[in-house]
Amino acid sequence: MLVSMKSTATPEQIEAVKEKVRALGFTPHAIGGAQRIAIGITGNQGKIDPSHFLTMGGVADAISVSKPFKLVGREFKPNNTEINVNGSVIGSKELTIIAGPCSVENRDQIIEIADVLSSLGVKFLRGGAFKPRTSPYSFQGLKEKGLAYLDEARNRTGINIVTEVRSEETLAIVAEVTDIIQIGARNMQNFALLEAAGSTGKPILLKRGIPATIEELLMAAEYIAHQGNPDIILCERGIRTFETYTRNTLDLNAIPVIKKLSHLPVIVDPSHGIGRWDGVHPMSMASIAAGADGLIVEVHNDPERALSDGYQSIKPERFKSLLYKLEQLAAIIDRSIPLQLTENITSTNYQ
Amino acid sequence: MLVSMKSTATPEQIEAVKEKVRALGFTPHAIGGAQRIAIGITGNQGKIDPSHFLTMGGVADAISVSKPFKLVGREFKPNNTEINVNGSVIGSKELTIIAGPCSVENRDQIIEIADVLSSLGVKFLRGGAFKPRTSPYSFQGLKEKGLAYLDEARNRTGINIVTEVRSEETLAIVAEVTDIIQIGARNMQNFALLEAAGSTGKPILLKRGIPATIEELLMAAEYIAHQGNPDIILCERGIRTFETYTRNTLDLNAIPVIKKLSHLPVIVDPSHGIGRWDGVHPMSMASIAAGADGLIVEVHNDPERALSDGYQSIKPERFKSLLYKLEQLAAIIDRSIPLQLTENITSTNYQ
Amino acid sequence: MLVSMKSTATPEQIEAVKEKVRALGFTPHAIGGAQRIAIGITGNQGKIDPSHFLTMGGVADAISVSKPFKLVGREFKPNNTEINVNGSVIGSKELTIIAGPCSVENRDQIIEIADVLSSLGVKFLRGGAFKPRTSPYSFQGLKEKGLAYLDEARNRTGINIVTEVRSEETLAIVAEVTDIIQIGARNMQNFALLEAAGSTGKPILLKRGIPATIEELLMAAEYIAHQGNPDIILCERGIRTFETYTRNTLDLNAIPVIKKLSHLPVIVDPSHGIGRWDGVHPMSMASIAAGADGLIVEVHNDPERALSDGYQSIKPERFKSLLYKLEQLAAIIDRSIPLQLTENITSTNYQ
Amino acid sequence: MLVSMKSTATPEQIEAVKEKVRALGFTPHAIGGAQRIAIGITGNQGKIDPSHFLTMGGVADAISVSKPFKLVGREFKPNNTEINVNGSVIGSKELTIIAGPCSVENRDQIIEIADVLSSLGVKFLRGGAFKPRTSPYSFQGLKEKGLAYLDEARNRTGINIVTEVRSEETLAIVAEVTDIIQIGARNMQNFALLEAAGSTGKPILLKRGIPATIEELLMAAEYIAHQGNPDIILCERGIRTFETYTRNTLDLNAIPVIKKLSHLPVIVDPSHGIGRWDGVHPMSMASIAAGADGLIVEVHNDPERALSDGYQSIKPERFKSLLYKLEQLAAIIDRSIPLQLTENITSTNYQ
Repeated sequence: MLVSMKSTATPEQIEAVKEKVRALGFTPHAIGGAQRIAIGITGNQGKIDPSHFLTMGGVADAISVSKPFKLVGREFKPNNTEINVNGSVIGSKELTIIAGPCSVENRDQIIEIADVLSSLGVKFLRGGAFKPRTSPYSFQGLKEKGLAYLDEARNRTGINIVTEVRSEETLAIVAEVTDIIQIGARNMQNFALLEAAGSTGKPILLKRGIPATIEELLMAAEYIAHQGNPDIILCERGIRTFETYTRNTLDLNAIPVIKKLSHLPVIVDPSHGIGRWDGVHPMSMASIAAGADGLIVEVHNDPERALSDGYQSIKPERFKSLLYKLEQLAAIIDRSIPLQLTENITSTNYQ
Repeated sequence: MLVSMKSTATPEQIEAVKEKVRALGFTPHAIGGAQRIAIGITGNQGKIDPSHFLTMGGVADAISVSKPFKLVGREFKPNNTEINVNGSVIGSKELTIIAGPCSVENRDQIIEIADVLSSLGVKFLRGGAFKPRTSPYSFQGLKEKGLAYLDEARNRTGINIVTEVRSEETLAIVAEVTDIIQIGARNMQNFALLEAAGSTGKPILLKRGIPATIEELLMAAEYIAHQGNPDIILCERGIRTFETYTRNTLDLNAIPVIKKLSHLPVIVDPSHGIGRWDGVHPMSMASIAAGADGLIVEVHNDPERALSDGYQSIKPERFKSLLYKLEQLAAIIDRSIPLQLTENITSTNYQ
Repeated sequence: MLVSMKSTATPEQIEAVKEKVRALGFTPHAIGGAQRIAIGITGNQGKIDPSHFLTMGGVADAISVSKPFKLVGREFKPNNTEINVNGSVIGSKELTIIAGPCSVENRDQIIEIADVLSSLGVKFLRGGAFKPRTSPYSFQGLKEKGLAYLDEARNRTGINIVTEVRSEETLAIVAEVTDIIQIGARNMQNFALLEAAGSTGKPILLKRGIPATIEELLMAAEYIAHQGNPDIILCERGIRTFETYTRNTLDLNAIPVIKKLSHLPVIVDPSHGIGRWDGVHPMSMASIAAGADGLIVEVHNDPERALSDGYQSIKPERFKSLLYKLEQLAAIIDRSIPLQLTENITSTNYQ
Repeated sequence: MLVSMKSTATPEQIEAVKEKVRALGFTPHAIGGAQRIAIGITGNQGKIDPSHFLTMGGVADAISVSKPFKLVGREFKPNNTEINVNGSVIGSKELTIIAGPCSVENRDQIIEIADVLSSLGVKFLRGGAFKPRTSPYSFQGLKEKGLAYLDEARNRTGINIVTEVRSEETLAIVAEVTDIIQIGARNMQNFALLEAAGSTGKPILLKRGIPATIEELLMAAEYIAHQGNPDIILCERGIRTFETYTRNTLDLNAIPVIKKLSHLPVIVDPSHGIGRWDGVHPMSMASIAAGADGLIVEVHNDPERALSDGYQSIKPERFKSLLYKLEQLAAIIDRSIPLQLTENITSTNYQ
């Protein structure tokens, strides 16, 4: 924290700021200039609230210097975090691929998709049972029944389950079934839910909030880590801007920036990130090329009849051809992808 | 909903769209042009998901025509909603003034502020007991103890309490004490909390989410109304933009727009909206001049020592001079404000 | 400028930074802490480019402390700038009202509007002759002919002219006719045009760019001031956000913030700021209540047939009733408005 | 265009809208529903201004259906545009690489960089001679002298020149030297400059404006195409959002979206797009993986001493290792890159 004084500040005002710093238990350091004085502060562990100084006489500004997060920061832990989920290691050289429909719609749908994905070597199935929807009149998910179908899909194929928790009330039953608990973008700053989910000990997939800065995403992760749960996967899924051709603006800048700031694995959701099925292939490639640790992709066996997000879902055949390309991309950036592609697939020209 | 076909669409593709419309139970209406065909849809009650058509062959676009909200819309109920809280009618000609500190910090603080506000004629005291904070290391509120102090403040002065609910788990104890349940910006799309709070039957103060469109704010209100609770107060508190001199960008355009779309009362939070104490007076005046039904203002007896939001809080003396100006403003726009200002106050020149 | 060193910085790296500061001609001040060192810099006149330090070994961050603008800053000139245009003083206690159509469409239109406005006591007529339009297929203005009609309107009524300059090439002919040169939002960072317009010596109305921060607006004004032209009127006209119900988001926070940072007068364009005729009255009131020095309002005698911006223009009758309300508002905030309203007008209820 | 009537619209109001459509020379098509009527319009060539209808009685909304651009749209010209600049074909399977410093700073600097780039096989040198800077106190470029150095660099190495035009006044001298005229982000809607640059007949590199939607970028290109100049290269360079860790938010979604809407080549500027040298490698890879036709990268021989943009510039050695990786990436997406890399370079681990 640096407190910058106005050029008109009196010696008394400068002394008052120093006194305040000392009262807070820290050490003030005056830097004298010809025109104005600034007071540096040391000795603090976390962030100091600038309000302590902003309202004082003679103060021009109070500027934070250090980062507010700790447990999730790379300064705290220099090596990448790796999360082992039944043998698949998220954050390792092996890319993590999560795929499946937006919502579990019925038993046959989720079983069929699980079978296809599993046959391709995909290790994680996504599918919403409790759906947070903008409108109370939209399909809200199959709830408990949806969880049961996901459970059946896992038992049948051995695929790991990733499903979203929508409320504290239903956390326990979701946590019982899922292998990774997903916290959706709208709940990124639902701190009660972060704490409750964190304390289950299950790995958490934390999606970036629609208006969240990278720092806020890391602070939300800090809430989970603070519960003693280090198994956090961050997910970039697009932020809100003025652009209207796309549902969101996928912020791939976030990948190298987060990699620098934090040791946590980061994956990308290209389906929400662009919001159009014909953009999923290029944005998936771009995400991995930018350094993401994996993808979460909406794959549906019948997008035209999907109960939600049909327009941004791709069919298994198109997904297969994406995986084939991702495998080639992984190879040139010193990564790998766990697949069972038995045949060469002609690449779809996605331009 | 209007489905616009590509100029290259075949008669079979056009027929398929019509068939799909009929299958959904609605009526298709083809509008023929020289270059392209569009298909209008009628017979639907709510919004139709564009995904039904976007993935079909020959379709160029699918455009929504009607509004997605219903119970909170002015088409549904043309007259303004008025909410009577112990005799103070929110949404009436009388402006609603809610004031108090960001957080309840200790008994003496909240009692002192309640006494001052009450003596000015203010009918609503705000104060957080459960605080959602960006960092897990920041002050999280006095919790149950904070609620008890608020209760004491009410019993002593008769002032109504407005306090925020942070989670489903603590909703019951908050609802027991508060006269109006506040849902914070970060929880605007915490649908489980909206439903739970709505079903208490208490009036709800719903703050606009940081990235929320006006339509999404109204859809969140629709969740509450859908629980049978019509007593909803909307609150504009600033949205996130690229501007960095201010904490948020107060979107006063929202006032006349919401007034046109909805019958619900709308108030403004100028303290969060600009994030600087020296901007609270002008933005309060601007809010009422734009047609807001009231204000929620952060007032603190000792902002320099506040545990949160000190920089955007004003002192009682400054608040008093604001009230004096608001009274004059109310008079010229055919509104009133309930005050007990016994003396003439010299206006602070806030420019 | 404060250069914050990493906790791992070596003594050599710290010394290198100090050496660099000295090489730039400034003075380094080390602030020692238990965990990390920061180096304050004094002696500089303007802003120091952080790049000088960001690429050096051991540097964590380089943070600017002072404001980058000078001539337009309140530190440079504490008193409000007042601009006298043929007897009307912009930036004084008297509010400045500029009104007229988006475009000059034909002689009769602009003469008719000038007559009406003049009869109301309005001292400034706006009207575009050279129109910057998003599409090359939209009406681009009457150009030279439009300027001639504006000239005729002034000669006839004595009203002052405000019209936009679209290019360096046409600056000379625009400057010959207009009393105030308007620089549009899209040209706010057309630095060649700013310099050229500034050097004419005519007062400049500078509109905030669609994505411009307040600081960038002030830096654009600094370009004009740097040409020796102090007669600059800033104009808030809405910024671009994610909201889609309104054309722009009018940022009234900018009024008190600019008033604090700069001595220049600030007016508001509510017509572009909300983009709907039914929002012009409330946003005009809000702007003046927030402390703006005036308004620029789109008034058209026949909005339904306007060649541009018809939807956000108001008719003279509605404008008259707005002026009547503004007069009442001005009175309570110690300002005035120059009007010739001969009769009492029943207020339009704009909610 | 679809005009949606209110449920309360009278038959007379509906007839009036139809009459207005006919008066404009188009054909109205009423779509009757149980609750409300909509009127489709056909026969128009370009976009219809919604204002024609929005102010009429009984009208609820007027919604555009077709795209506003024409010459640059893929509907107008289905095949990709290829631009041949002295044998290098932009928009072909061969990726276009443009590299060089932000500014030409002195003769030795630009000659040294041109020599290095040329030796790597790079065919395009960027370098600003006329610099648009936010502050009038920042380095504004070497101007004519800078152009002369660029000319010398070309004569010496055969490399093509890409430099920015800052004003209409200096267009002629810039056009004489440069092979591609760059229009910067701040001038994207400087329509006079677009027209003047377009009419030179030189290829134009058009950067997306800081707040520009994809549609506005295409409309700006339409201004150039409308001058009879089809040789336009679009450039995504980041848009402004609320994120503060990065200078801009690189919108890679724009690549597949523009490829679908337009036949023009699209390149990416990762240096401005992320604004940090350590993000240039990952964002370059991501851009090409997303389908971009090339890159414009800031490369500087001595970033620490650069007069502008030093923090986002990379050194030739790092650039070389990027090119090596791009070559591998190009191979797997059926593209190529013209290089003269004589040795295997160990990849820099950019995570």
